[in-house]
Amino acid sequence: MTDLGASDTEPSKNDVALIVGGGPGISASCARLFANSGMFVGVAARNPDKPALHNLEKTHGVRRFTCDASEPAAVDLLFENVVRDLGVPTLVVHNIDGRVPGIYRKAITEADPSMVFETLRNSAFSAFLVGQRAARLMRENKPNSKGTKGTIIFTNASAALKGFPSSGAFAMACHAKSGLAQSMARELMPQGIHVANVPIDAAIGWTQEDGTRGHRRAGTTIDDNMADPDYIAETYLQLHHQHRSTWAFEVVLRPWVEKW
Amino acid sequence: MTDLGASDTEPSKNDVALIVGGGPGISASCARLFANSGMFVGVAARNPDKPALHNLEKTHGVRRFTCDASEPAAVDLLFENVVRDLGVPTLVVHNIDGRVPGIYRKAITEADPSMVFETLRNSAFSAFLVGQRAARLMRENKPNSKGTKGTIIFTNASAALKGFPSSGAFAMACHAKSGLAQSMARELMPQGIHVANVPIDAAIGWTQEDGTRGHRRAGTTIDDNMADPDYIAETYLQLHHQHRSTWAFEVVLRPWVEKW
Amino acid sequence: MTDLGASDTEPSKNDVALIVGGGPGISASCARLFANSGMFVGVAARNPDKPALHNLEKTHGVRRFTCDASEPAAVDLLFENVVRDLGVPTLVVHNIDGRVPGIYRKAITEADPSMVFETLRNSAFSAFLVGQRAARLMRENKPNSKGTKGTIIFTNASAALKGFPSSGAFAMACHAKSGLAQSMARELMPQGIHVANVPIDAAIGWTQEDGTRGHRRAGTTIDDNMADPDYIAETYLQLHHQHRSTWAFEVVLRPWVEKW
Amino acid sequence: MTDLGASDTEPSKNDVALIVGGGPGISASCARLFANSGMFVGVAARNPDKPALHNLEKTHGVRRFTCDASEPAAVDLLFENVVRDLGVPTLVVHNIDGRVPGIYRKAITEADPSMVFETLRNSAFSAFLVGQRAARLMRENKPNSKGTKGTIIFTNASAALKGFPSSGAFAMACHAKSGLAQSMARELMPQGIHVANVPIDAAIGWTQEDGTRGHRRAGTTIDDNMADPDYIAETYLQLHHQHRSTWAFEVVLRPWVEKW
Repeated sequence: MTDLGASDTEPSKNDVALIVGGGPGISASCARLFANSGMFVGVAARNPDKPALHNLEKTHGVRRFTCDASEPAAVDLLFENVVRDLGVPTLVVHNIDGRVPGIYRKAITEADPSMVFETLRNSAFSAFLVGQRAARLMRENKPNSKGTKGTIIFTNASAALKGFPSSGAFAMACHAKSGLAQSMARELMPQGIHVANVPIDAAIGWTQEDGTRGHRRAGTTIDDNMADPDYIAETYLQLHHQHRSTWAFEVVLRPWVEKW
Repeated sequence: MTDLGASDTEPSKNDVALIVGGGPGISASCARLFANSGMFVGVAARNPDKPALHNLEKTHGVRRFTCDASEPAAVDLLFENVVRDLGVPTLVVHNIDGRVPGIYRKAITEADPSMVFETLRNSAFSAFLVGQRAARLMRENKPNSKGTKGTIIFTNASAALKGFPSSGAFAMACHAKSGLAQSMARELMPQGIHVANVPIDAAIGWTQEDGTRGHRRAGTTIDDNMADPDYIAETYLQLHHQHRSTWAFEVVLRPWVEKW
Repeated sequence: MTDLGASDTEPSKNDVALIVGGGPGISASCARLFANSGMFVGVAARNPDKPALHNLEKTHGVRRFTCDASEPAAVDLLFENVVRDLGVPTLVVHNIDGRVPGIYRKAITEADPSMVFETLRNSAFSAFLVGQRAARLMRENKPNSKGTKGTIIFTNASAALKGFPSSGAFAMACHAKSGLAQSMARELMPQGIHVANVPIDAAIGWTQEDGTRGHRRAGTTIDDNMADPDYIAETYLQLHHQHRSTWAFEVVLRPWVEKW
Repeated sequence: MTDLGASDTEPSKNDVALIVGGGPGISASCARLFANSGMFVGVAARNPDKPALHNLEKTHGVRRFTCDASEPAAVDLLFENVVRDLGVPTLVVHNIDGRVPGIYRKAITEADPSMVFETLRNSAFSAFLVGQRAARLMRENKPNSKGTKGTIIFTNASAALKGFPSSGAFAMACHAKSGLAQSMARELMPQGIHVANVPIDAAIGWTQEDGTRGHRRAGTTIDDNMADPDYIAETYLQLHHQHRSTWAFEVVLRPWVEKW
């Protein structure tokens, strides 16, 4: 008989979580929640010296790693270091937006090709590199009590669902990530690796200077009309804890008042 | 600050759950899990005298209701009775397949029109009736700590995602249910009601005579290659517990070895 | 070698086209174009005495048939009459919107169940009935020079692609029609019958009192911001003329300025 | 009144078509059909000295251009040369598959990162470069009689619709192309430029040594179970000729016997 309910509360004691892409939003929320649930947690970022990451180290014992995830050799080294310092990962989150700032709201006729290329590399190609290395390690894992050898989660955006005007580069990158995730899911799920694609169809809340969270768009009076990264992290943990008899591949998260 | 983790373990003490459609699979698993988490639970079925439902009453205090959910007056009466006996529902699950047996694997040229019509009525029209009545009541609820006035979940099937050959009637019914769910989600989410569509892309496990669950397709050696209804119920409860800043509308569940 | 270009201009001399649903928009445009290309054309409507249909009879020799397409016996009789009067159809267009007027822009909580039911019956169930009878006859046809025994086209709406708020009944009906079309396509295409689903993501132009066409939404200055039914008909004819090595199943048509 | 039927037969006398990617399949079929319909036609390829392209020059006056379409400067030069030699294009087809041979059927764990990167660059990035330059020129065109300033068509594959296992790189590239096409369509259609994405869900037929076409998969007896590029070209020309009141964005083409 299945022992229900227990699954979500049991600390994930032997789990090693790696979050690639580090900032004060989803990555920090994931790091805290995963650490609180008993996992060893690492966060990789191009610049791991951000205050947000130092805080996570202090308060939650999160390990910081340096990595440009769009460089094959750097990703190889990252996984070597993670295995050495924390162990073989059972949960890997790719949480990189990848947009070069100059590419935002650029008409297709005005977009700078080198920025389009960088966006593709930062986002989609790094997702491939991280997903590939995670899969190579996870397939050697022993299945846990839910039958899972490991979980690979790709944070994605509404641009994965719909190509918006004046956003061609991001539409390419997010669609590419979805295509990769879907191919990996079809290939790896029968090998015991859970692959999930999570487009966040929303602006994402942030941590304010006083440490409280902001989830309100400027000019509105509704407090929770942006996606709260703490709850995004909660969904990620639930995905990781799903039994392999009922895996979800794609979960779109959006605030109650979002137009879609 | 958000108090994470607590949400999934706290008993849903003031919640009233109504499951429409009653059998030994998803409905029974939902009833048990919802009751275990502190809800008052009702199950409605055309024939509420099935042994499975009597057992739920005995072991989990689940209330049984009689209802042909494709009849407007019967659905009105059901909700009146539920409100009177249990209270205003905060979680309603529509869990009706609706296929008339004679419609299975029928070529389009051979399908009996009256059976096609019955399938549409049993499945899609009943989903409308149940969803409408649930919405009318829920919009008067006070939001809970997650900002939710109520959750309406439609169990759906892979035929909602893909129209299979020799299955036109079911393709119509499941697609119709998806269309309804999507329209309701866009309309009701900004009113605080969480609407979710959950296509199960799998055969669903069942309870065997000895009380244990069967999750293996005939002729295979893999134990969990069918969807375990206990875990489907777990996903439903998580959907109900999601904070309104990050609601999922559609979650497709499939076993790890499923082809898709 | 393929003799390209000829296909679209050669009159479809031996073709019999049946258009189910009759009005001054898509049906009339189809009837004119099909007749002009050499087909024998019939139009079926609940009320075939509309002036628009009388005109088609006079100017294009279009045959009028009486039929409530949501009644199995009526659809049987329609096809009998068409075969008797025109021959076995090679092109059937289901062009019924099916919305009961009272269902427009109704909140889910306010929609009248009997009107929801009627909408499902008028639209989705009639699509099944018409599709089924068409398939039964067409599978006995000899393939034409493009390898096609017959073409069945379902006119659909943007509600097939997206469930809009306050439009639950139409979302159900249009999604159901898509599900049916997809199931039929997977089943019948390998039998030589081309099934197509054509959601028109637009308001559709109409014929004005002076006989000219109107394609401009009130309050705008753009002349062609609504879908021109003459061009919709052109796409239908192209679908019918496609070689079976490259059939399109779904074609969404929208005006250049449509938001989507 | 619209003068129907004429549109498809009138030679596109003032049109300039550029096909990027050159081979004996879709590109050659497009070049022949476009030239036959009165257009000035150019084909760009990395190696424009292939016999297939020399033949097109001889028989249909097709102009050959050298271009590595994944290089921004090379694409700039291509469009300069086309404008100088043929005129401003009104129809541009991006017809590059882009897969590096070594990437076929590679498990995600085995795929060579540099080949994945090359595939992304060859396919998706070149689509951006070609689409951008085409859009810049076309927006200055005068609308033709159908209201169209120009048409940009992206040939795509079933990997755009579904991420297949052991095909992650191609899934990324094709999904990226779809995302780009969708973003461009939403942005450029209101400016009078028709953007279309055409996934061919099939193996594509080829020209045999004796000049006849082969459309049969090895081991089958059905003659037309592969997509005939001559008919794909026909659909492209129809897309180019659509009136802007009823543009199709995405058309999936598949042979009648294809499984999907």
